[in-house]
Amino acid sequence: MTKIQELRATVDLLVDRVRHLEDQVEIMQLVAQYGPAVDSGSGEAAAALWTDDGAFDAVPHLQMRGRDDIVAMVHGAGHQSLIHNGCGHVLTVPHVVVDGDQATGRSYALNIRWDADADRFWVARVSANTWRWVRTPLGWRVAERINANLDGTSEHREMLAPQAQATIVSDTQEER
Amino acid sequence: MTKIQELRATVDLLVDRVRHLEDQVEIMQLVAQYGPAVDSGSGEAAAALWTDDGAFDAVPHLQMRGRDDIVAMVHGAGHQSLIHNGCGHVLTVPHVVVDGDQATGRSYALNIRWDADADRFWVARVSANTWRWVRTPLGWRVAERINANLDGTSEHREMLAPQAQATIVSDTQEER
Amino acid sequence: MTKIQELRATVDLLVDRVRHLEDQVEIMQLVAQYGPAVDSGSGEAAAALWTDDGAFDAVPHLQMRGRDDIVAMVHGAGHQSLIHNGCGHVLTVPHVVVDGDQATGRSYALNIRWDADADRFWVARVSANTWRWVRTPLGWRVAERINANLDGTSEHREMLAPQAQATIVSDTQEER
Repeated sequence: MTKIQELRATVDLLVDRVRHLEDQVEIMQLVAQYGPAVDSGSGEAAAALWTDDGAFDAVPHLQMRGRDDIVAMVHGAGHQSLIHNGCGHVLTVPHVVVDGDQATGRSYALNIRWDADADRFWVARVSANTWRWVRTPLGWRVAERINANLDGTSEHREMLAPQAQATIVSDTQEER
Repeated sequence: MTKIQELRATVDLLVDRVRHLEDQVEIMQLVAQYGPAVDSGSGEAAAALWTDDGAFDAVPHLQMRGRDDIVAMVHGAGHQSLIHNGCGHVLTVPHVVVDGDQATGRSYALNIRWDADADRFWVARVSANTWRWVRTPLGWRVAERINANLDGTSEHREMLAPQAQATIVSDTQEER
Repeated sequence: MTKIQELRATVDLLVDRVRHLEDQVEIMQLVAQYGPAVDSGSGEAAAALWTDDGAFDAVPHLQMRGRDDIVAMVHGAGHQSLIHNGCGHVLTVPHVVVDGDQATGRSYALNIRWDADADRFWVARVSANTWRWVRTPLGWRVAERINANLDGTSEHREMLAPQAQATIVSDTQEER
């Protein structure tokens, strides 16, 4: 190889490594926007984190499909009551496994609520979260988020188990 | 273009992308140092996260201006009492929007306190946080942090609303 | 310097910067796997985050040495009872200081438990965490994690104090 060919090879490798880092950081930053969006009542901003037809399951009571459902949840009486009373939706940084233009992840979401009488907060929910993200022309978006309370239900606990990396590319294994 | 010019163009683009990643990761790491600094009583280390004349508003009772004010808060009776009784200042990873040598962000801060009699902690505060960071010769530093309890006060909740990216570069829009 | 030498110098610098970013992000992602592993009862996955002979001190009652000890903790009666009752081990993103093939860090771990009768969670522990990671042929792994409750004990609080960067390379200062 000539000197320039060697350099080209190094640069090509760097391009791949930088793209992988960008994927990781962009997905972290996507998730970091959820709490601030919903706790400020910004329904459209929350919905914009999902794909047009993205799914959001708040197990067991709420199955949102598409951005309009997410906007409706944020603007709905239940959520509005929460944030007017004082509430924080505190999400952790997910573990992210990127596979081409798709990615999966696991994390926690805390739902913590203000009690003015007691001058303190109480922890209403600590939930297991699983995520599917997809790379779109506008960047990574949420294709599916499942949120289920860690109340001892075995299915909720098992959502947090690490998946074999192959699972996200194999159709036959998709029914985990 | 010659082969070397092509390669130069790819490398120039990579330099920009790497700098953007460094900005994101460095700011995440800057914020990750706040809790450990104040919970270990390291006033100077906490203050060093700010610029010399940085601002820190703990709404509504405390307006700190400059590093000495931050050191004084950490070494003061109120904070010392907190950490000697047992306390964690747990901050989340912020959503960060970088614009040249400035950046803004939104995140949460939890103030959780030990209750020895009950053998458990209680959540004293869950706060909305907004940040302004600036790039200095020594790296990113906090220019302004505002911390306000999510107790249902509308102004505190609205701190978490996403800003149009333009807001941080336009003087006329700075009064949000 | 010729044009190609100049470019080579820029690329060499980029390689170092990208490696540093990879170290930071990989360690963040390593830590992000702990909670999901133990809360899903995946003992082997939790243990695999450590080196073969890695250490994990849950101060004061539990000193784990090597992966088998970590598997045994996760599969043991105490931990199984926790997760069957409903529990979240919520870890924050650590502050990470990388020094060649070693790194150290500080963070928090929350242990939050479900109370079915009260329909809410309670915060059992908020712990100071210190970490030592090492670069292995398979990536970064935990060499040592110390977890100690922030219950006002001065030694636990002091774990969170920033170390001088030199401390992690100097034998004479290793006894902090």
